[in-house]
This record gives sequence, C-alpha cells and structure tokens, in this order.
Amino acid sequence: MKILIAPNTFKESLSAPEVCEAIRAGILAAGFEGEIVSVPMADGGDGTMNALVASTDGEIRSVTVSDPLGRPVEAAFGLLGDGRTAVVEMAQASGLWRLSPDERNPLLTSTRGTGELIAAALRAGASTVIVGIGGSATNDGGAGMAQALGYRFLDADSKEVEGIGGALCRIFRIDASDVMPELFSARIRVACDVENPLLGPRGATRVYGPQKGATGEMFDGLEAGLANLAYLWERDLGISVKDHPGAGAAGGLGAGLVAFCGAKLEPGFDLVAEVSGLHKALDGADLVITGEGRVDASTAFGKVPTGVARLVCAAGIPVLCLTGDIAGNCANLHECGITAIFPIVRGPMTLETSMKEAARLIALSTEQVIRLWMRR
Amino acid sequence: MKILIAPNTFKESLSAPEVCEAIRAGILAAGFEGEIVSVPMADGGDGTMNALVASTDGEIRSVTVSDPLGRPVEAAFGLLGDGRTAVVEMAQASGLWRLSPDERNPLLTSTRGTGELIAAALRAGASTVIVGIGGSATNDGGAGMAQALGYRFLDADSKEVEGIGGALCRIFRIDASDVMPELFSARIRVACDVENPLLGPRGATRVYGPQKGATGEMFDGLEAGLANLAYLWERDLGISVKDHPGAGAAGGLGAGLVAFCGAKLEPGFDLVAEVSGLHKALDGADLVITGEGRVDASTAFGKVPTGVARLVCAAGIPVLCLTGDIAGNCANLHECGITAIFPIVRGPMTLETSMKEAARLIALSTEQVIRLWMRR
Repeated sequence: MKILIAPNTFKESLSAPEVCEAIRAGILAAGFEGEIVSVPMADGGDGTMNALVASTDGEIRSVTVSDPLGRPVEAAFGLLGDGRTAVVEMAQASGLWRLSPDERNPLLTSTRGTGELIAAALRAGASTVIVGIGGSATNDGGAGMAQALGYRFLDADSKEVEGIGGALCRIFRIDASDVMPELFSARIRVACDVENPLLGPRGATRVYGPQKGATGEMFDGLEAGLANLAYLWERDLGISVKDHPGAGAAGGLGAGLVAFCGAKLEPGFDLVAEVSGLHKALDGADLVITGEGRVDASTAFGKVPTGVARLVCAAGIPVLCLTGDIAGNCANLHECGITAIFPIVRGPMTLETSMKEAARLIALSTEQVIRLWMRR
Repeated sequence: MKILIAPNTFKESLSAPEVCEAIRAGILAAGFEGEIVSVPMADGGDGTMNALVASTDGEIRSVTVSDPLGRPVEAAFGLLGDGRTAVVEMAQASGLWRLSPDERNPLLTSTRGTGELIAAALRAGASTVIVGIGGSATNDGGAGMAQALGYRFLDADSKEVEGIGGALCRIFRIDASDVMPELFSARIRVACDVENPLLGPRGATRVYGPQKGATGEMFDGLEAGLANLAYLWERDLGISVKDHPGAGAAGGLGAGLVAFCGAKLEPGFDLVAEVSGLHKALDGADLVITGEGRVDASTAFGKVPTGVARLVCAAGIPVLCLTGDIAGNCANLHECGITAIFPIVRGPMTLETSMKEAARLIALSTEQVIRLWMRR
C-alpha cells in the first residue's frame, strides 16, 4: 500500500513541507505500515519556492536585493535539485508586505529586486527560472526588473529613466544592448493564474492598483505609463503583449516578463506539479492526501487540492483534503474529484489556536481519517 | 449495505433522535442507497426518556407533580411502544435545575415528584418502570418518593413525618400498609452508573451534598438522617442497602429505590441498549455511527460511544464517533473499539455557534465521512 501526501502550505501557519511532515506523523500514528511519499505542493503563489526546493531536494540561496523602494533587503531564491532550475518568488523582493501602509505608492515602487533575484539565479547557473508572481507592491510593468537584467530606459534626451510606475511615461526608448546574455538562452516560466489584460478597466492599474496604494489621481498616470511601455515593447522589441491574458498580473510584471524575458505564463499548479514530479510520485498510490489552510467553493479554481484531485481522478484513487476551515458549501469540490474534506480542528477553538497548533491538529486529524480508511 | 446510527444526545443542543436525523441526512447526502437504521441512545442520564420513546415508538405523557420544594410543576414520563414499560427521569421532577441557586437546600427538598411520576406510570399500566437518576436536588434517601407511592413515616408519637432530608432523623417507624399494590407487582429498573455507598466519606451527603446547597453545618444532620433511614429499612422492611454500590446515588434515591421499590440498579447504557433493541438493530450492519456532544478520555467509562463500540466490536464492524469536541488524548477510546472519531466543526468557531448549528454540522461531517467510507 502507498499513500501520497501532496498538500499546499497552510498560509501563515505551516509550510507545505511542514504540512507533509504532520500528515506523515498522523499516518504512522494510525499504524499504517506501507509506503508514504511526500510531495509538498504550491499553486505558484506563496510557498512555491519552499515546496519545490523540498520536493526536489534543492537549496535556498540568500541574496541582498532591492526592496520595492530600492532599500537593500535579504531575499532568497531556490536552486532545485537538478542544479539547473531556479525558483524566484517576486513577493520575496517586491512584495507589498515589504512596505508599511504609508509607504505604499505605486508611482515610486519597482520590481528591481525581482530582477536582481532572477539575475542571481542565472549567474548561479540556472538555465530555467520559474517565477512566482503575486502580492506585488508595484505597477511598473516589470521595468525595474528589466533594469536589473541590463535593459536601459532612455528619455527623449537619452537620459536614463528609473523603472518605477511614475516614470514609465517619460521613457522614449528601450535599449537592450547591455542585457545579460544568460537571459536570452534561459527559459523563463511564470506561474500565473490571473487572466487580466495589461490595460483598461480589467487591467493591472484599475483592478490591483488600489490595494497597492494607488489613489484616484494616480490612475491616469499609471495607466498611461503602462500604455507607453506596451507601445515601446512593440516598437523596440517587436513584442505585443497588451492583450496577452495575465499581462496585467502583478502590476504588469506578467507582461514585462513576456516582453523583456520571453517568458511563458503558465497555470501555477500545473507548473509546480510538473517540476515537483507529482505525476511520477502518484504511480502506484492507493490514497492521496492533500490540504490547504482554508477551502471554499473557489478552491475549485487553480488551487492545490483540486489540482491534485483532477490529476488523481483518472486513476480512480480516493483524494482526501485536510483543511483548517471549510467555508460554505463545497459540493463543487467533490465534482473536481475530492473524495472527502476533513477539518483539522477538534472542537470549538479560535483561529489563532488552530493556526498555532496546526501541526499537532493535522497529525491527529490524519490519524482518525487513516484509521477509517484502513478499515476498508 | 446497512448503516446503524446509535448516538447519544448532544447535551443542550440536540436530542438523540435529532442527532439520528442529522446523521441520516448526511448519509443520504453522500449518496448512500442502502438500509439506514436509527436507534437513538442514552446512558441512563439526560435524554433517556426521549431516546427510548423514540426508539420504541412510544409516547410522552405529561403529569402535574411536585417539584423538589413541593410546588406543582409539569413533568413527563415515557410510555414505551410495548405499552407496558415506562421511563421516568428523576431530574424531570426532582432535578436541581428546578431550583434557583438560593432555593437549593437539601434539608428541605424531596423526591416526592419522582414518586408521583412512578405512581402515574404504574397507574397508566406499566409493569416495568425504568428510572433514570442523576442531577437531583435532594438528599432524602428516596423518602419523598416513597410517600408518593403510599409509604408513611411516623415519629415517636406516631405523627406523620415529611419525607425531606432534614426530617429523616425524626422518623421512628416506616409503615408500608398503604403502599399502592401496583408497586409490588412491578419491576423497577434503575439506570445507575454511580458506585458510591449511602453513607460515609464517599456517600451521598459528603460527595454530592455541596452541589445541592449543603453547607458545613448541614452535613451531620443529613448524614444522620440517611443513617436512620438505613436502620429503619433493615428493621421495618428487612432490607440492607447501606453497602449496596450506587446506594448513594441521587442523594440516596438509589438506596431508596432498592429498599422501597425492590429496584435493581443497572449500568445505564446496558439497560438502554437492551430496552431499545440495539442488539437486534446491529444485525447485518456494515458500519455503525455513534456520537456524543463531547468526548474525552473519560468517555471510556459508561458513556454511549464506547458502550456502542464494545457491543459492535465483536462483530468486527467499524464504529465511527461524531462529536462536537474531542478533548485531550483519546487513544483509549480506540482500545474500546471506536474505529475513528470525527469532529462536527468545520473550522474555527465558538461553542455557541457549534451548538446552535449542530444539526447542520453533523450532517455535513457525516457526509464527508461516508464519502470516504463508501470509497472502500
């Protein structure tokens, strides 16, 4: 008998590898004596680096990079077990969490730090870089990132323009002559589940600007900046990404990665599943346990539990989902292939307690579920 | 396929029949199409009447009786489906809940109301009366109950003495000549899981007196009263119950039922299981679902879930336990035969919410458990 463990992180509580460990402890406590395989998962968002480093036996490398306002901060990228694939999470360097609420201003913020992480990964020998985007503090269309990789932005007087949201309008020309050569031979894969276009009412500025501190009077300038960038991408780089689904992700970083780095935007779960070897691990499994901090009806869309369930479904194996909170009616998750959903809480308790005690609770809950499953 | 549902009440939230309904709804929601049999259970305490009336298709009869202080109140007894067995819960008439905190005084309280319920049951044609004891407001050794059944207590001047805790010392003689004749031909079965003797440091007064309002200066008088009653039982009725295990239950009502009514004290769960026909319902079952509002390590002792599990164990069928709260380490419950324990909560929530929403939560939790079980 073989059980495959493939959960997401329990956000702000346990990383995916920690969730795997807790589930494994519960399985063992139930007296299961077969094979147990853990493949920590992620959906391309938070925890993608940790999950892929753990599942491929890779390593974390620390680098000093720029935060969204250009201040030096320590951030990390993952070098996977193959030594040739790196994982960069844009939120590490350019995430909104790096700023205090009164520092949030997309006119001034930049994705330069994310570019520095990608550059570090390329210099470390990575020929493929997986970039997780989401949670950005920026609306710079990836201009800051591009500068870190060697792109230059020049104004009408051929003076350097900084790659920040508020300066994009002043860019007159993109100069790619100094771009680091490793970039052109590398494969850049972006985990992106957002479908927003770059511009317009469903674009980066209008939809995601407000949470980054964009106020009413900033909208037109930010939108014009991205529109200018899109024009220059076409004219100077010969790439049209305006209508590319996902171009509007992460303040236009989605578009920037495509235009500046030749990146491909891919559904996050599929990308992580492929790189982590989930398909192979599934081979011969009799039961799959997945999980996520919280599940609700929206878990059907691009999230780990349903991603795992869809993969497993065809194999006819039961897929159990452990979670800290089952919100609302989740009948649609069963239609996605999740056999049953089990909470980790054991009785009335606060969110704080359930998060603090998550490892113990996951193990206890798993033990009970496996006890029932073993009594088939 | 057949599923047997045999839960206890979820105290202060749902009666055992309501719990059965909720579990049944969950089983059906999971798509189970086999036979479902419900046998609401009880352990001899709260909810015993409801459970037995429901499981035997009996009826509830309302009667006006005396509360612990002699005031008229509406109380009920159950006449079971056979028309010859009645169920009386002493707490209905003589329970502590009938009194406000400042009315609690075991010198003044009496079990008369419980006797009136038994008398009503006998008059209704019951030849067997099951009496659930526990939660009493009294320390009268069942003297009040006895008076309601026709016993007379006389003092040294042959004057009537009231059957209350504070007057037992003054009784000089027990007169059984006016006892209702139905009592002598009836079988009185008492659900009692308490093993305390009538007198002494582990006796009724010392152990249970304080919660009924007994203060330091009352102890000696109350204890002397019960001792006098025990002496008279031997002298006038020829029955020695002083050292009978359970004699000290419910302020000595345990002893009184044995002495005045020829009752037998039996473990509550076993009694309920027998009368409700649980053994027969178990025949051919493939899965048993039990439950209780809260389980902890003490659930191993005389409670419904482990009682059910012990019965089922020999049959080799899985027994699942649903509960509102799993407290502490319950490993010993598995040793009692419970296959797995599942909480009804779906995430962080308050006790109030989980109690208010219990029916819905039980159904949802059952659905998930059955979905897994059906994927054997």
